[in-house]
Amino acid sequence: MSQPLTTVAGISFRQPPPLCSFLFIIVLLVATFYTLHHPDATPPHLFSPNTHNSLTLRRLFLSSASNATVSSYLHSLTRHPHLAGTKPSLDTLNYVLTHFQSLRLDDTRVVEYEALLSYPTHISVTARFSNNTTVEFDLNDDVSSSSGVVTPYHAYSPSGSAQGTVVFVNRGEERDYRALEVIGVSVRGCLVLARKGETLGRGVVVKIAETKGALGVLIYDEKDGGALGGIERGTVMRGIGDPVSPGWPGVVGGEKLSLDDDRVSRRFPKIPSLPLSLHNAEIILASLGGARAPVEWRSGRVGSSQRVGPGRVVVNMTLQGEMKMKKIHNVVATIRGSEEPDRYVILGNHRDAWTYGAVDPNSGTSALLDIGRRFSLLLESGWRPRRTILLCSWDAEEFGMIGSTEWVEEHVLNLGASAVAYLNVDCAVQGSGFFAGATPQLDSVLVDALKLVQDPDDVTLTVEETFKSQNNNIERLSRVDSDFSGFLHHAGIPSIDMYYGADYPVYHTAFDSYDWMIRNADPLFHRHVAMGGIWGLLGIILADEPVLPFDYISYAEQLQAHRDAVSKLLEGKVSVDPLSVAIQEFSLVAKEVADEAKKLKEQAYSKYDVAVAAKRRELNDRMMLAERGFLDSEGIKGKEWFKHLVYGPAAEPESKLCFFPGIADAIATNSSDGSIKHEIWRVTRAIQRASKALKGGFT
Amino acid sequence: MSQPLTTVAGISFRQPPPLCSFLFIIVLLVATFYTLHHPDATPPHLFSPNTHNSLTLRRLFLSSASNATVSSYLHSLTRHPHLAGTKPSLDTLNYVLTHFQSLRLDDTRVVEYEALLSYPTHISVTARFSNNTTVEFDLNDDVSSSSGVVTPYHAYSPSGSAQGTVVFVNRGEERDYRALEVIGVSVRGCLVLARKGETLGRGVVVKIAETKGALGVLIYDEKDGGALGGIERGTVMRGIGDPVSPGWPGVVGGEKLSLDDDRVSRRFPKIPSLPLSLHNAEIILASLGGARAPVEWRSGRVGSSQRVGPGRVVVNMTLQGEMKMKKIHNVVATIRGSEEPDRYVILGNHRDAWTYGAVDPNSGTSALLDIGRRFSLLLESGWRPRRTILLCSWDAEEFGMIGSTEWVEEHVLNLGASAVAYLNVDCAVQGSGFFAGATPQLDSVLVDALKLVQDPDDVTLTVEETFKSQNNNIERLSRVDSDFSGFLHHAGIPSIDMYYGADYPVYHTAFDSYDWMIRNADPLFHRHVAMGGIWGLLGIILADEPVLPFDYISYAEQLQAHRDAVSKLLEGKVSVDPLSVAIQEFSLVAKEVADEAKKLKEQAYSKYDVAVAAKRRELNDRMMLAERGFLDSEGIKGKEWFKHLVYGPAAEPESKLCFFPGIADAIATNSSDGSIKHEIWRVTRAIQRASKALKGGFT
Repeated sequence: MSQPLTTVAGISFRQPPPLCSFLFIIVLLVATFYTLHHPDATPPHLFSPNTHNSLTLRRLFLSSASNATVSSYLHSLTRHPHLAGTKPSLDTLNYVLTHFQSLRLDDTRVVEYEALLSYPTHISVTARFSNNTTVEFDLNDDVSSSSGVVTPYHAYSPSGSAQGTVVFVNRGEERDYRALEVIGVSVRGCLVLARKGETLGRGVVVKIAETKGALGVLIYDEKDGGALGGIERGTVMRGIGDPVSPGWPGVVGGEKLSLDDDRVSRRFPKIPSLPLSLHNAEIILASLGGARAPVEWRSGRVGSSQRVGPGRVVVNMTLQGEMKMKKIHNVVATIRGSEEPDRYVILGNHRDAWTYGAVDPNSGTSALLDIGRRFSLLLESGWRPRRTILLCSWDAEEFGMIGSTEWVEEHVLNLGASAVAYLNVDCAVQGSGFFAGATPQLDSVLVDALKLVQDPDDVTLTVEETFKSQNNNIERLSRVDSDFSGFLHHAGIPSIDMYYGADYPVYHTAFDSYDWMIRNADPLFHRHVAMGGIWGLLGIILADEPVLPFDYISYAEQLQAHRDAVSKLLEGKVSVDPLSVAIQEFSLVAKEVADEAKKLKEQAYSKYDVAVAAKRRELNDRMMLAERGFLDSEGIKGKEWFKHLVYGPAAEPESKLCFFPGIADAIATNSSDGSIKHEIWRVTRAIQRASKALKGGFT
Repeated sequence: MSQPLTTVAGISFRQPPPLCSFLFIIVLLVATFYTLHHPDATPPHLFSPNTHNSLTLRRLFLSSASNATVSSYLHSLTRHPHLAGTKPSLDTLNYVLTHFQSLRLDDTRVVEYEALLSYPTHISVTARFSNNTTVEFDLNDDVSSSSGVVTPYHAYSPSGSAQGTVVFVNRGEERDYRALEVIGVSVRGCLVLARKGETLGRGVVVKIAETKGALGVLIYDEKDGGALGGIERGTVMRGIGDPVSPGWPGVVGGEKLSLDDDRVSRRFPKIPSLPLSLHNAEIILASLGGARAPVEWRSGRVGSSQRVGPGRVVVNMTLQGEMKMKKIHNVVATIRGSEEPDRYVILGNHRDAWTYGAVDPNSGTSALLDIGRRFSLLLESGWRPRRTILLCSWDAEEFGMIGSTEWVEEHVLNLGASAVAYLNVDCAVQGSGFFAGATPQLDSVLVDALKLVQDPDDVTLTVEETFKSQNNNIERLSRVDSDFSGFLHHAGIPSIDMYYGADYPVYHTAFDSYDWMIRNADPLFHRHVAMGGIWGLLGIILADEPVLPFDYISYAEQLQAHRDAVSKLLEGKVSVDPLSVAIQEFSLVAKEVADEAKKLKEQAYSKYDVAVAAKRRELNDRMMLAERGFLDSEGIKGKEWFKHLVYGPAAEPESKLCFFPGIADAIATNSSDGSIKHEIWRVTRAIQRASKALKGGFT
């Protein structure tokens, strides 16, 4: 397998589909032209040895980007489907491994775990209509070539048959069932058909249907993806990480629980579920009798004549699957820090894909591989980061963030003691527009990085300018949909997650291919390059700045806003004063720390000044540790593995806040005032712990 | 209040009892003579400024001891009873506070918490014999002057009356009840009378009696203490720390649970209990009818004619107590480190006492105050420790380690990140012979310190020589009987606990006075001085050594021995292979770390060498962190607050190991092989975490 280290040379092809090849060659030509004429695309031999000047270094890094190289990486990565735990996925593993090895970084290794993965063996859905005709649905994506692509399924759905009349449940939210109840429709003993919504994950849709007494769940996507003929695969496992080693690393030879252990079985739904194409769903929808759909459901493709069932159609869904212990493989490449080798900045992306994974996740992988290449060039030019940088390629994310979660579980103690930040990119490019989520102390360093990178869609602007002009806010990372979850929610590591494009139609379908990428999302790989620039730059800044560029004043302001939102939601029912007092204290300490950081940054500093080095280290350690304060060993009630009390998943689908999950759950479940108070106190104490960590010492 | 900074001058008296004064003056005369003629008692002005030579420094420290000064401290501390939460205890607080303040250390402050304490308001025990005579027992210690001493009671025993016939239950262990069952005796509906044993705490004796259906519990001490006429007070609370803020710091204004909250009420027994004098107990014992006591009970004062009851005597015990929120006060004095101010060596002792507290705990307090004085002299001479030293005086230990536990709960995150070791001394002197418990990586530094200190009972020997000749082993700290518990069992801080004398008769009685100390345990305060020497020296060594003197090979050997003991107990029923493999790995890493430490110690080192400083710090951090690996966020089943899986309290009274409490419990309760295996795996993973911490990084 080739190791393209320079702009064009050394790219090999292995029988790509003809259309791909054609488009790819065009891209290459354009990219080569671009590279030669673009002043930023400095070839390696122009690197200045003066890499200790941080601005020069950052410019050098940015100038070393190469669209064509990224494109070639993506092309190689997406040649065939590479679902985790399958043989073809080993090719992708080897590609990434060989790439990092060829760069001669300080260490590159495969980190192996065993995990319980889930695959379909036989799936069928048939519908018998009132006229006694029967249709057996085609369950595959409507795509010309999908050889080797797994049939659309829900991983960890139980095997079995379910047969019954169908009820359309809109998006399958609690309020949808309440609306059905109003019109006297129950789903007990029926199959439910749900269209994909914006808020609930498919696992939650299944869980709610299960509690309502449904026998099985069919989910379809009525938006672009469905319209294209794609069908969305996905996991319905509850919680994240290997289900048979819950809370501990699934190392080879380690403890594995049996499938009938309650700690395992509660991770899986009790009723089967399947994704269905829009086409098939509409056949069922058209045949439904019963009452008309509630008015508030009428949107998208659901019109005023839609009926909710049950009746007039009986559907049988049968699925046979197998759960198997499989080896999964992370790749971790290390660039050792010069002055603080025991402090770590971690860049991570997953490698496994439901299908070809051009967007999800290998747009991110190709950006990561290019960052590796560019870091290697910087190293050759004399650079060495102050802190250690890890470049991580995770496996089995699609099954529930398994590769990264097992790694976090294995290293949680050392992560807590030595990880500065985790920078995640999953789908680097799915469309246009830059989006990011971050823990708030990283807001300002993120914005600083955006200021240095050219907008891929408008050469006259920086990414920061476009980001601002589009009124995009930095999101907060309570969602559990990519590999940052274990780092932030379990280990309390400050994290960033970034992507281009808010949404994309081929999500988890067989259409997510290199072809689709170059036709739709990033024909010239400019967005990939921009993402690689931002991501790598953040890595360099966080690894190199003697004083960590953490901004806890931003965190304090964000906590204040969260407090206000809680207060509003509570309407004076329960006092939030403890939170207010704790945030005020946190804010004061944050200001002191900012002053201290400013002074230390300005302080004249010789390499040989042990005292200044110690002071900086000490301040950095406090800023690094503060995020850990938000962890609580008891975790979120009902989701105890998730320890972060500020950002993390609520256990209740009806929770109305995307922060303070414990408080949100207590309010959503109409808990007693005492329970809400207790959750407010828990967050209060978490903020107090963070203040104490930020302050240091014991006073 | 006086601040005796030199050998004799400046000691004030506040109307001490005449006998005390007389003895004290004699002690002072002897001590002054001793001080003047003893070559080690160098007055401050002889201090050499060359304090950077560590051996010189250690000698200077040892030579600055003063028996008379320690004696004067103890005398002042024990003038009156100073039970936590009572007004007189504030005098003792002020004495300690003023002392540290006068030394002009870098910081001295009072750290206040609110905690639920428990006091008796009315107690009575009456016995009605078969001849219809009634006796109301005198419930006070048989001591001439005990004004202000609290009536003997069990803190947190519920208020109420219990009346019934009495059953003698030997030591109140499970096997004692089994022996009673064999002879057909049930305690259901009866009061039980138990003699104090060696193994079970009084709280557990009450808990077992409760599960057997007893209505109330009377406990007496048949050994010296009882024979003297003393009655042992104590707490019967389950778990440690403030019961209304379980798991979080009881800061003023913080969350407090109500008494009827299950998390609070389960901390208290459901049946009343009281301590009884030996005299009163023997009156009851003599009147018991029923079967003869089982043969195996016949020991001490229980003879072959003893009957177990029930019948022939009906006892009514009535107790009214009050549980009150009280302010408690820790004192924390700080000596800031020069080079690593953010690393902490913590010396701690509690201050509160059931009565006068001459042994328990103020022998330790007087040693701590003297260490403060001597450190202050060293500071004046130019010394400054490399790391920060904290001298801590805890409150409300007697109620359940409350002062230290709340402090640990408040600072658990910063402790985890920056505490090198916790050095506890509770009863510094209760008799002869040096005893110590330690986490095993501190064994060798402890022994090294013992080698430098003269045996107080034989000037020709060092403490180490006597310790060795008496075949005393360093104990392991699974017990929960002093302030190290929170530090080690909850926060994973390497700890040492030390005392002179294995046992003493006046434990928790009104006899525990200055008088008793100078008559019985340490007339010339040599043992106090020796303890102060060892304790302070350990503080200096751990604070000053550039490379921490931690020995993880010793830990590995100890783990190996523990593994062997588990294996023996299991008789091959369940494999301990996972443990073996993990310990082998731990052992290898320990050896690598030892080599690394040796090299770094030998490496030529300039003060200005940032790289060497960073390497030492990095190695030290790994050695510091490794103990944290033994913590598990789920804790010990049934005692979840206790997170340390190697050392900590078993939840089951019948557990047979004083280490690996989770495994011990699983074996003791005849759990399924699966449960035992799971506990073995949990310890295995704890050892793996410790190995990873010791190794550092993520490979």
